[in-house]
Amino acid sequence: MSLKNLITIYQQRVNTALDTWLPTAAIQPTRLHEAMRYVVLNGGKRIRPLLVYLTGHILNVNPTSLDGPACAVELIHAYSLVHDDLPAMDNDDLRRGKPTCHKAFDEVTAILVGDALQTLAFYILSHDSALPITAQSRLAMINTLALASGSRGMVGGQAIDMESVSQSLTVAELENMHIHKTGALIRASVKLGALAYPAIDNDWLAKLDHYAKCIGLAFQIQDDILDIEANTEILGKSQGADIANNKVTYPALLGLRGAKQMATELIEQALVSLSDFDDKADPLRWMANYIITRAY
Amino acid sequence: MSLKNLITIYQQRVNTALDTWLPTAAIQPTRLHEAMRYVVLNGGKRIRPLLVYLTGHILNVNPTSLDGPACAVELIHAYSLVHDDLPAMDNDDLRRGKPTCHKAFDEVTAILVGDALQTLAFYILSHDSALPITAQSRLAMINTLALASGSRGMVGGQAIDMESVSQSLTVAELENMHIHKTGALIRASVKLGALAYPAIDNDWLAKLDHYAKCIGLAFQIQDDILDIEANTEILGKSQGADIANNKVTYPALLGLRGAKQMATELIEQALVSLSDFDDKADPLRWMANYIITRAY
Repeated sequence: MSLKNLITIYQQRVNTALDTWLPTAAIQPTRLHEAMRYVVLNGGKRIRPLLVYLTGHILNVNPTSLDGPACAVELIHAYSLVHDDLPAMDNDDLRRGKPTCHKAFDEVTAILVGDALQTLAFYILSHDSALPITAQSRLAMINTLALASGSRGMVGGQAIDMESVSQSLTVAELENMHIHKTGALIRASVKLGALAYPAIDNDWLAKLDHYAKCIGLAFQIQDDILDIEANTEILGKSQGADIANNKVTYPALLGLRGAKQMATELIEQALVSLSDFDDKADPLRWMANYIITRAY
Repeated sequence: MSLKNLITIYQQRVNTALDTWLPTAAIQPTRLHEAMRYVVLNGGKRIRPLLVYLTGHILNVNPTSLDGPACAVELIHAYSLVHDDLPAMDNDDLRRGKPTCHKAFDEVTAILVGDALQTLAFYILSHDSALPITAQSRLAMINTLALASGSRGMVGGQAIDMESVSQSLTVAELENMHIHKTGALIRASVKLGALAYPAIDNDWLAKLDHYAKCIGLAFQIQDDILDIEANTEILGKSQGADIANNKVTYPALLGLRGAKQMATELIEQALVSLSDFDDKADPLRWMANYIITRAY
């Protein structure tokens, strides 16, 4: 099977699982459930679920054990986008080429959708009792996801981001913000995949974690670059929004060329971290390259 | 020990535990952590944590095993208040006699505080690995709390509430809203206390659950009554806010006298559910009476 086929299969796999876990719009409260499905089932790239599956792939974990963690991490990501887009936050009208949740529905619904998607993530991880994962491993997954997404992880990064609007930041401060805002959840995705394999070796875990840390930061730098280079249609969100919102970005601090170089170096580091792994790690290598070559 | 002393001891116990679990305001992002502490460590009545402890008390569960669940349920409650108070939702300025989170801080911080408090609740339940509770029981607690607080529980109730503003509701529809909005978390509190005792008998569990269902609804009716009868100073939030916000209430549907009678009957039902229990259930009986005699 080609790498691209493998990626497509896993994307379809998580989409099916998300569709199954999300309450149908026929269940009360219908508008809330309709909005939850609207923001999640939207053809997203599913980078975080892919990292869960592809990490499990290296360790020969049965994909059935990975559906829950893959859904959970995507739901946390989806909830964060809905809340980040709110008028009080980034006030974005477009997300993945469609009206943001508060535009398509309303602000109340968007707040509640975010809240409920977060809850659903933890519900799923606590629920899959038929899975061949020990209760201890599932608790470790919940712990990992909660730590990565709370005030010392993703939400903390968003708080730092909002506080730093119109401020001047150093590269180190910008990195600190992104390590929390996007990096923590990307690292958690890889760790969730690894935790599904109880006998995971600490050295392997450290190498996978370093890979995740590098691609997480490269991902954000590429996001900043795309905000300048891509057009709104391809990007699916408003191009130039960072500049309009007075956001500090890597290209602003390092220049466009410097930012691209930093992203490339991070991906090289990520690949070095995988050098002890055999060709089972090729999909993760593909992901690393995809992250800095993607156009949206 | 008098009942009142027992209640005070458990209130202090959960306050100490919450203080320990909440990151200090010295930890980055400092403003977010300061705001999280502001909304949680505010002298709340801690009704939900008390239900966790007092249910465990009947079953002779060591209170150490109950600190985590007690904190978790209070954090879910606290997050829901912060989001409910937001300008897009109830737009409340006062909560427990102090400015609401978005007034004391700002709207961005209030959204993120709510998000992070929810995450912290699940973090705590997944983290207490030193506790004498099995991993399986802790997963069941996470599952219970997630189900009660998500789109088919508390958040769903809030969505129904917001949709029904200025609508006419029947008593059954109003009850359905409150069973979700406040009832689900109160029932979960009692269940969390019971889940800490792995050998819980199904008949006992059903009786405790019926108790919780009755007091949950009575609690909401009393809230509606207090919105009319109490003054803002004692209530700690704006008196008459329900009427000002065009909320459907029990007194509006049943009259003040009818609402009081319904609350009294529910408490009687709750007490009947406890009739098989010995005097270890006296604190839960006290709670039932407290719920309809409280002045705020």
